[in-house]
Amino acid sequence: MSSTADKAAAPDRFWSVDEHLDDILGKIRPLEPIELQLLDAQGCVLVEDVTVPADLPGFDNSSMDGYAVRTTDVEGASEEFPAVLTVIGDVAAGSGELPTVGHGEAARIMTGAPLPPGAEAVVPVEWTDGGTGGGPAAGMAARSAAPDGASGEVRIHRPAVARAHVRAAGSDVAAGALALRTGTVLGPPQIGLLAAIGRATVRVRPRPRVVIMSTGSELVAPGESLGPGLIHDSNSYVLTACARDAGAIAYRVGAVADDADTLRSTLEDQLVRADAVVTSGGVSVGAYDVVKETLSELAGEEGSVDFRKLAMQPGKPQGFGRVGPDRTPLLALPGNPVSAYVSFELFVRPAIRALMGLEPHDRETVRAVCAEAVASSPEGRRQFLRARYADGKVTTVGGPGSHLVKALAEANALIVVPEETTAVEVGAEVDVILLG
Amino acid sequence: MSSTADKAAAPDRFWSVDEHLDDILGKIRPLEPIELQLLDAQGCVLVEDVTVPADLPGFDNSSMDGYAVRTTDVEGASEEFPAVLTVIGDVAAGSGELPTVGHGEAARIMTGAPLPPGAEAVVPVEWTDGGTGGGPAAGMAARSAAPDGASGEVRIHRPAVARAHVRAAGSDVAAGALALRTGTVLGPPQIGLLAAIGRATVRVRPRPRVVIMSTGSELVAPGESLGPGLIHDSNSYVLTACARDAGAIAYRVGAVADDADTLRSTLEDQLVRADAVVTSGGVSVGAYDVVKETLSELAGEEGSVDFRKLAMQPGKPQGFGRVGPDRTPLLALPGNPVSAYVSFELFVRPAIRALMGLEPHDRETVRAVCAEAVASSPEGRRQFLRARYADGKVTTVGGPGSHLVKALAEANALIVVPEETTAVEVGAEVDVILLG
Repeated sequence: MSSTADKAAAPDRFWSVDEHLDDILGKIRPLEPIELQLLDAQGCVLVEDVTVPADLPGFDNSSMDGYAVRTTDVEGASEEFPAVLTVIGDVAAGSGELPTVGHGEAARIMTGAPLPPGAEAVVPVEWTDGGTGGGPAAGMAARSAAPDGASGEVRIHRPAVARAHVRAAGSDVAAGALALRTGTVLGPPQIGLLAAIGRATVRVRPRPRVVIMSTGSELVAPGESLGPGLIHDSNSYVLTACARDAGAIAYRVGAVADDADTLRSTLEDQLVRADAVVTSGGVSVGAYDVVKETLSELAGEEGSVDFRKLAMQPGKPQGFGRVGPDRTPLLALPGNPVSAYVSFELFVRPAIRALMGLEPHDRETVRAVCAEAVASSPEGRRQFLRARYADGKVTTVGGPGSHLVKALAEANALIVVPEETTAVEVGAEVDVILLG
Repeated sequence: MSSTADKAAAPDRFWSVDEHLDDILGKIRPLEPIELQLLDAQGCVLVEDVTVPADLPGFDNSSMDGYAVRTTDVEGASEEFPAVLTVIGDVAAGSGELPTVGHGEAARIMTGAPLPPGAEAVVPVEWTDGGTGGGPAAGMAARSAAPDGASGEVRIHRPAVARAHVRAAGSDVAAGALALRTGTVLGPPQIGLLAAIGRATVRVRPRPRVVIMSTGSELVAPGESLGPGLIHDSNSYVLTACARDAGAIAYRVGAVADDADTLRSTLEDQLVRADAVVTSGGVSVGAYDVVKETLSELAGEEGSVDFRKLAMQPGKPQGFGRVGPDRTPLLALPGNPVSAYVSFELFVRPAIRALMGLEPHDRETVRAVCAEAVASSPEGRRQFLRARYADGKVTTVGGPGSHLVKALAEANALIVVPEETTAVEVGAEVDVILLG
């Protein structure tokens, strides 16, 4: 079935779900990398090996609020027999000029502040009298309220080994080390590491801009009143929400009437801002299926879109191709709302992820026990039934009708009934795709 | 430990992680609902019971491209002995004026088009000759290319029962039914249902606007060069990314110097756009901990912030309160990068979700086997160790040092070592919080 020769020989054959997806993913290339501000790169894939330009931390610094001391000065110190040191000043975080700590001296030091020359260790303030002459301190008085804390004497209640409460330069990561490897997805901690090593921008694959168009002369925007035979456009809303959820920047174009010229000119207009185009409707066997009619006839520079029948339910009619001067991927989904939604999950979501350079598949598939029977499923077609999954069990919601949007809004999973299966008994195990 | 009397009696006591979180969640109220455009409401919580204003679909319509017929006219029809009917016109989706189908007549009809008066069922085009006079049709020729398809004769190859391939008015959901219940989170399918029933806007709790400020005179923006004792600000980036990831609209304010007046005026400026404020740094026992110093002293209309020690590692010093005329929640996190990140996960993420009206906890906690020992963990403090989790096993990455951002960027989980546990053996089971 899947060889090129067979495909050419049987233009009206049914494509399997996997063949169609393979065709899409085989023709989609990840977007070209661009340099983005750190926070604009959230969720994107890194396209460079990032090395550390300088030691992190860049200098030995204190991990506690306390006193920087020489270890020999505090040998044997205890609360009963404290070491009494002269406080020579403060070292705050961000201090550029540092006092030198001599014998018998201590510098008051804050977390993150550089260890001053001469000092070998930090004693936390709780192990001192905090310069008060009393018992163990709970903390330091604010510098602004008590400037004398940076002078006078401090009683140290415990000895310190060399480097105690000191974070060594390079102890987080050393200069020249690999911070992040190409291919890393940038979540909050990765963005934090990049900021910490001083990177303001980073080279990533951007989020794809996906243009969403629904088509159909019967479509009216929500909020507007319906004339006879008209319905509210829901597909452009669902698919826009789905595209964002998949990581794209989605542009919703209003519903386009079933008119070839309008469709063609709208598509031409939109291509300038599209990394991919998703349409819904107009792909089946009717006399007004203008998407299929128009896009089947593209020629030369316009690109081409192939329309095909898939061995699936819902979602039999599908189109895929590349259009315009940049050969922008275009996925033409069927117009029934459930068909459009299921088609997005199966084909568009992986395509968007592929454009971002991500692994295309991210939905979890689990095995679950059917809590009720599936009376019939079409032979030779892979059926996707809306369902609720919980605790290893799954139950269908609503019927298989591809217009049932109420039931779709109650579903959290899709039951996958294989091509060769025509019924599922109560208690049988099935594959279930968990949605979001 | 947790009674109010005990709290008052021991101002310097350690709070448990759970006490601190309970205090925060007990004082946070979900944001007031507002009416938002459908796509702006994605991910938000619905704050109204939405009922269906009119039957969906609003009229009987065809589920296939085919011919609308009277059932008696096609009784016994077969490919060998077809029923021959006169085609009286087209019914496209969106058609307002409908032909009446009389005996011996058929109307060509498209998916979604209203069933015309007189017709009782639809015969798919594949079960007819499509008006060609030949064998079974694969589809219809486009109306624009072959206008004669809407007239002439059609041969019907199969009989039809009444209502075959007809979707009844109200068969998706009937007028007056509950479409979505208050409290529903609006994902793509729910937005689709709202659009389908004609709703352009919907009443939800909005995403909270969260102002993120890092503090510290040592902080320099990434991309700028470092003087002696200075480091790059990473917290404001990590926390902004975390806040977005939790569902907030995050505003990153540049790092604020350790100066009380600057901090106070920046906070006053920012409050106008804040549903919550998150600071990092300046909350410990040092002499330059300006966040603690400034916010401890708020009085009257300024609100109040309580600073406390938590029985956890990292993240011992924390502040929480409500500030300004609107009593905006403020969470003051410690400044060490790992402490700030872990504190966000434990306290700010649930707070943001509570502001949205969502269940505060969404991170999954699983049991996992420690692949290596945890040599020591501080008694009386709940420790959160950065770790990698896979397939039921978990391994720490990096040490417990709260400055280790490289290791944090490699973690995908936090091992939770309980307060009473001081070491974990290889092979022991622990709780693991899965991150994102």
